[in-house]
Amino acid sequence: MRKILVIGSGKSSSYLLKYLVQKSDAENLFITVGDLDVSNAQKIVGHHPNSKTIVLDIFNDDDRSNAIKKADIVISMLPARFHSVVAKDCILFGKHMVTASYVSSEMKALDEEAKTKGIILMNEIGVDPGIDHMSAMQALDNIRDKGGNIILFESFTGGLVAPESDNNLWHYKFTWNPRNVVTAGQGGTAKFIQEGSYKYIPYQRLFRRTEFLDIEGYGRFEAYANRDSLKYQTAYGLKNIRTLYRGTMRRVGFCRAWHIFVSLGMTDDSFTIEDSENMSYRDFTNAFLPYSHKDSVELKLRNELKIDQDDIVWDKLVELDIFNPNKKVGLKNATPAQILQKILMESWTLGEDDKDMIVMYHKFGYELEGKKHQIDSNMVVIGENQTYTAMAKTVGLPVAMATLAILNGDITSVGVQIPITKEIYKPILKELEDYGISFQEKAVPYLGYNPLNN
Amino acid sequence: MRKILVIGSGKSSSYLLKYLVQKSDAENLFITVGDLDVSNAQKIVGHHPNSKTIVLDIFNDDDRSNAIKKADIVISMLPARFHSVVAKDCILFGKHMVTASYVSSEMKALDEEAKTKGIILMNEIGVDPGIDHMSAMQALDNIRDKGGNIILFESFTGGLVAPESDNNLWHYKFTWNPRNVVTAGQGGTAKFIQEGSYKYIPYQRLFRRTEFLDIEGYGRFEAYANRDSLKYQTAYGLKNIRTLYRGTMRRVGFCRAWHIFVSLGMTDDSFTIEDSENMSYRDFTNAFLPYSHKDSVELKLRNELKIDQDDIVWDKLVELDIFNPNKKVGLKNATPAQILQKILMESWTLGEDDKDMIVMYHKFGYELEGKKHQIDSNMVVIGENQTYTAMAKTVGLPVAMATLAILNGDITSVGVQIPITKEIYKPILKELEDYGISFQEKAVPYLGYNPLNN
Repeated sequence: MRKILVIGSGKSSSYLLKYLVQKSDAENLFITVGDLDVSNAQKIVGHHPNSKTIVLDIFNDDDRSNAIKKADIVISMLPARFHSVVAKDCILFGKHMVTASYVSSEMKALDEEAKTKGIILMNEIGVDPGIDHMSAMQALDNIRDKGGNIILFESFTGGLVAPESDNNLWHYKFTWNPRNVVTAGQGGTAKFIQEGSYKYIPYQRLFRRTEFLDIEGYGRFEAYANRDSLKYQTAYGLKNIRTLYRGTMRRVGFCRAWHIFVSLGMTDDSFTIEDSENMSYRDFTNAFLPYSHKDSVELKLRNELKIDQDDIVWDKLVELDIFNPNKKVGLKNATPAQILQKILMESWTLGEDDKDMIVMYHKFGYELEGKKHQIDSNMVVIGENQTYTAMAKTVGLPVAMATLAILNGDITSVGVQIPITKEIYKPILKELEDYGISFQEKAVPYLGYNPLNN
Repeated sequence: MRKILVIGSGKSSSYLLKYLVQKSDAENLFITVGDLDVSNAQKIVGHHPNSKTIVLDIFNDDDRSNAIKKADIVISMLPARFHSVVAKDCILFGKHMVTASYVSSEMKALDEEAKTKGIILMNEIGVDPGIDHMSAMQALDNIRDKGGNIILFESFTGGLVAPESDNNLWHYKFTWNPRNVVTAGQGGTAKFIQEGSYKYIPYQRLFRRTEFLDIEGYGRFEAYANRDSLKYQTAYGLKNIRTLYRGTMRRVGFCRAWHIFVSLGMTDDSFTIEDSENMSYRDFTNAFLPYSHKDSVELKLRNELKIDQDDIVWDKLVELDIFNPNKKVGLKNATPAQILQKILMESWTLGEDDKDMIVMYHKFGYELEGKKHQIDSNMVVIGENQTYTAMAKTVGLPVAMATLAILNGDITSVGVQIPITKEIYKPILKELEDYGISFQEKAVPYLGYNPLNN
């Protein structure tokens, strides 16, 4: 039997494990799941004869090496910063490896060694990054194959709450790492290209310069710019493109309200608040407003950010209970971002019966035979329940499929890889359709940003 | 003769050198000025028999050591980052040293060694830091000497253009390092205490939460919070103070207009703009605004930041020529802050006949015999001309006076020092009065932030 070692069995691993176990007879697989806590894995793989769980501490060098030595291929579902420890062993023992995470500089540094050893280190093969790469490259390659010249590419992804579970004013619940949501957009100015011009949006304006996107049957969304719109410009072959933009999707109205937290300083993760432990939520809010012996925290906030009495953003703030004088922060030496995250998690945690939703939207503009064309393409995946989430599905299935493809010799390029070549994306996108992960493409009039150029 | 080595003879050294030369006969001094370029020093010390200039590269170890060895005391007027090279030699050869700069971590690290060797490393004895320390400590000590309990301390300083040379809409010209002005407030949230509550202002709101200050004969000023209001809380003995705030002064209206640059992202110094060299000023402004094939840069900016057609901030932007399509940036791989600095320097450089102005404003609140009191204290110094600026005067004279006081044995505390003790500040503040550097103190009703506490 071919031995797959899956390291890490957190929330994103349900579909991954289920898929592998289901394929295990036909594909002759034995799946070992290693984690510090194997309870989640046991729930999913149960007592399937082709699988087992082992307690594994990746910082125990002997245990880790032994587990990796025994495998034919390793999947790391660990937090991204731990992948390189695993990757180094994989190179040492000549094992291929698959992750859903962005290629870190540590991972990149292993490229040459992996190539020398004939090892594949496949990364960014979850949803974003992952399905976005594959679906974009398929569309771009199709356009180029018929002779089109790409002039516009925009790509948007959002991890959101499904419409049937959408019951708060922000139309948002946490489905990804909450910390990343709170600190999103920090660490540098967003940079992209519109009609040949480089454009820059600093953090302080990021949530005020959004774009709208409509998806049939799901209504309107908005998107704010990612910091790294130009990151894959070369990899995607878009050197001379006129418009290149990557963004994150939210329901309309989220960003305008979120901008309030950014403006006040509540998303800052770089310093700790004095005596945060004993603060009330109201104290926390008040710490970002001028002192007054008589004006209420509410009026000071309205005045500071000029919020009208009938503005819906106000109700969004109230819904989060940020003016509550009785709820305590209860976190020692916490940053504003950590405190805000705690407050948000009370309102935005997925409930027992809540479903999540992954939304993706691409726009492709191209010139063909002197005319401009545009194809819009979108994907919506709704989760089944709290274990089988849309997130776990869109992250886990491509990882699992890539793992099998490597085992079966269908993916052969060695070194540090991301899924942007036909040999990788074509079969995986095809198979994902069987699991309800598919894109709706339609030709639309070319919009671009400059109608004079149409 | 007692030998003083002055290293660095830039713009801030005019009064320093003039003072030392004038005192040289009476105090038996010989002043050696070392710099890479000695032309400025020669203009000031001329052919005075008690002084000479030497070409000195502080990165030439032999030349530096030799010069320091020969001196009895060393004044470093170099950029702050170079002080520690000089300080290490001073410790090695047993020479005292004086600088006007903030104590860096490198300087701080030399404290113990300096103490062991019996060496004084006097720092922060210019204007801000310097005169602010001394004048504040004198007032605080006076209040404490009569039994008062300090409950409020606010301190503001501004380097501005003198009223007679104030001929632009911003009422501002560069008198300090322009780069520091452009990037002011970056690198962390401002933190201070008001009525016992810690308050935080992020960069994105810093220039919208200003305070007004009136100075008789000079009109109204505004101030934005420094990042480090609590920096000297312990040194000043203000452990349990209710209000502690340090700020930077501008003329009213500056900050609201400056906020536009902050909001757009033009003050960012962390990334470089694509093809900055060939951009026009208009292109630069447009890079921070959405693409449009027809709307003007002007209208996009007005719309983005909701600037009314009759708002004076608009005229401030126009005055700086940021919409000019013909002026080229001409800087390769420049950050937004570098480009903005270049644009500002065209409008804000002191002219041949312009005078600068240093303004300082302290508020001291205290309780005495069950009653609350407040003393406001301010200082205004106007420069004579481009060489003898208010900046050079307020930086250079305290440095020179401290140097003599050390030579004369009037300052005796060894190690890394700042001028917060009576032995240092009292004679220097007294002598500064002879040079027109004096504070106007007056008792005012205690204002604080909470009238209910009065």
